[in-house]
Amino acid sequence: MPSNAPRMKLEATKALGAQVVLYDRATESREAVAAALIAQSNATLVHAFGDPWVIEGQGTAGIEIGEQLQSLGMKGPDLIVSCCGGGGLAAGLALACPDADIAIVEPEGWDDIIRSLEAGEILPVKDLLHPTYCDALQTPQTYPINFDVLRNRVSQGVSVTTAEVAAAMRLVFEKLHLVVEPGGAVALAAVLSGKIELKPVTAVTLSGGNVDRETFVQLLAQAA
Amino acid sequence: MPSNAPRMKLEATKALGAQVVLYDRATESREAVAAALIAQSNATLVHAFGDPWVIEGQGTAGIEIGEQLQSLGMKGPDLIVSCCGGGGLAAGLALACPDADIAIVEPEGWDDIIRSLEAGEILPVKDLLHPTYCDALQTPQTYPINFDVLRNRVSQGVSVTTAEVAAAMRLVFEKLHLVVEPGGAVALAAVLSGKIELKPVTAVTLSGGNVDRETFVQLLAQAA
Repeated sequence: MPSNAPRMKLEATKALGAQVVLYDRATESREAVAAALIAQSNATLVHAFGDPWVIEGQGTAGIEIGEQLQSLGMKGPDLIVSCCGGGGLAAGLALACPDADIAIVEPEGWDDIIRSLEAGEILPVKDLLHPTYCDALQTPQTYPINFDVLRNRVSQGVSVTTAEVAAAMRLVFEKLHLVVEPGGAVALAAVLSGKIELKPVTAVTLSGGNVDRETFVQLLAQAA
Repeated sequence: MPSNAPRMKLEATKALGAQVVLYDRATESREAVAAALIAQSNATLVHAFGDPWVIEGQGTAGIEIGEQLQSLGMKGPDLIVSCCGGGGLAAGLALACPDADIAIVEPEGWDDIIRSLEAGEILPVKDLLHPTYCDALQTPQTYPINFDVLRNRVSQGVSVTTAEVAAAMRLVFEKLHLVVEPGGAVALAAVLSGKIELKPVTAVTLSGGNVDRETFVQLLAQAA
């Protein structure tokens, strides 16, 4: 786990019985750290996003979106706006909802997939030290399995600022009474700031509530 | 609406198109204020708790508890721990779940129903100026319709402190990623502080998220 992961996430993982090994995002490769641990322990790697089963599991959110719309007597979704780090959730949603357009939203400075889709090849993040509150979306670069799904399906890709993320978190706090972490609020942030061209039936993902109290308070306070 | 109601609740009500008339909790009777408005406008009173239809509506939460337990292959609930202001929700739960024991939880200083059940008659709150964060539970006294249901069904009644409420709100923030207002957290506060004798299948109500950002931050910060 990155050494600057939210304390709450670290503690909750430990409480589930995990042995947590920390690494430095800026100077260490998590792939290399994991490979060394696996060599020592004969463990099995379950990659956070670059894995077909993980992608399939995240895609179940898309199946639920379809079912919930159906129970409301609606068709679709026509468009899914997805929070995007390594591209696991976005790829899963794309595969689960073959008739939906997919919009991906990344935090400012961590928009490697948007740039990769534009370039037609996988590009890494430019600056691993670029500050962001969206720790869950700080992926250095995507994997071919994610890229191959997304390159054929993503119709819009935008990045959002901290101020836009904070405004979305505040709206969710005030109107939905939910706690969403910064990285889980980027899709809504993009919609609220008018950066996404909506379709008649648009679904927006809110994913993850692992945010330390201090960070939550700070972002809510600075929200417009 | 009381003049010290959460700003968020006031604004959300206005946004729905309501004309909001404020009154002072300490010096005015909301019954008298409402009666004057009705005389002027020929409006219909929908009482917040002392009304059979309101009680029945709140009781649907009990039906949902039963259905959700059933879908998990469980029976019950054996006990429902209910947040309690005027006694509308608690009475509704009691009627909807005739086989369940009912525990009511009130904020410190606003424990008029607990005292009424002990006395066998409806007693008012002793001090209308007693400070509490649980604005939704600040009912001066209950109504006969609520009292008559609760007197035959309540097996436990306890009050909780602000510190206990704050600890419950923090747990809900950290583990459930939900925003719950102080008055909506009293039932869980009572359970967490060991004041409720639990039964094998116990349901705890978390009700209401109308809490201003400043109050939420303040209570989370002071939680142990």
